[in-house]
Amino acid sequence: MEERVTKAVQDYYPDSFATCYGCGRLNEKGHHFRTGWLGDKTITIYTPLPEYMGGIPGFAYGGIVASLIDCHSAGSASLYVLRKNGNELGDGTEPPRFVTGTLKVEYKHPTPLGVPLKAIGTVTEIHPKKYRIDTEVFAEDKVVVTGEVIMVMMPEKFRETVKQK
Amino acid sequence: MEERVTKAVQDYYPDSFATCYGCGRLNEKGHHFRTGWLGDKTITIYTPLPEYMGGIPGFAYGGIVASLIDCHSAGSASLYVLRKNGNELGDGTEPPRFVTGTLKVEYKHPTPLGVPLKAIGTVTEIHPKKYRIDTEVFAEDKVVVTGEVIMVMMPEKFRETVKQK
Repeated sequence: MEERVTKAVQDYYPDSFATCYGCGRLNEKGHHFRTGWLGDKTITIYTPLPEYMGGIPGFAYGGIVASLIDCHSAGSASLYVLRKNGNELGDGTEPPRFVTGTLKVEYKHPTPLGVPLKAIGTVTEIHPKKYRIDTEVFAEDKVVVTGEVIMVMMPEKFRETVKQK
Repeated sequence: MEERVTKAVQDYYPDSFATCYGCGRLNEKGHHFRTGWLGDKTITIYTPLPEYMGGIPGFAYGGIVASLIDCHSAGSASLYVLRKNGNELGDGTEPPRFVTGTLKVEYKHPTPLGVPLKAIGTVTEIHPKKYRIDTEVFAEDKVVVTGEVIMVMMPEKFRETVKQK
């Protein structure tokens, strides 16, 4: 399996939408999650820092895994719609930005700290502006957490707000 | 409405379970979410730091709100079971610890940055070891996000693992 995402959608978000704590390349303090293609699936790889432990010492904090799934899903929807429209990363087309509608996370097993977590997603179109992303988070080849997320294309009013700044 | 949680369940977790990035008082880098009673509901109040912006500049990162709901729900379940068993915070009884089963978050409106977020929860017992916590997150008296979380009493095997360390 991939060990590193080399070509990530987050590298191509416009600067004005690259500030997200989870995945924005311009957020100095954030996680810098990076999402790319893995065949016809999407992948985000992240090793939580030691401080991200949860209620069970030695295991990862549920909030960090939820955050990973959130940004992974936004990136996955962006990749999917970019390709659906006949474009690819790096061809000069701006990847579309999404906002989270609902985020559902199921914690199946405690998530170990100190190993790379690999979120692997499948995108399904449920409406031209809404996409469902089903994700499995692997730790050492075991699925520890799953996600089911509805991503909504960012409404024009938010885009306009930012452009006016 | 309350502006500060003065008596929080997280202050009474045993040291060995007080390391959570979200709500552990012993995690130096964490959020230090604090959950207490508000009548027969539970409340956690948190103002996200400026870096916790999301995909829409000026608004909060979904992952931080999901994290808030996660720890708020764990704390709410702990408060609820403590009281159910005839105890209260500060009477010397150790509050029970929970792990997240499923976390479902619905983002209804963009969450503003720079104002206190107030997560207010209702706990329902669905099994002696499983509790459902329904939460509304308010920003300036408007519900911006809701949560529906299943918390599971921490299995004895995890408790034993920690005690042995």
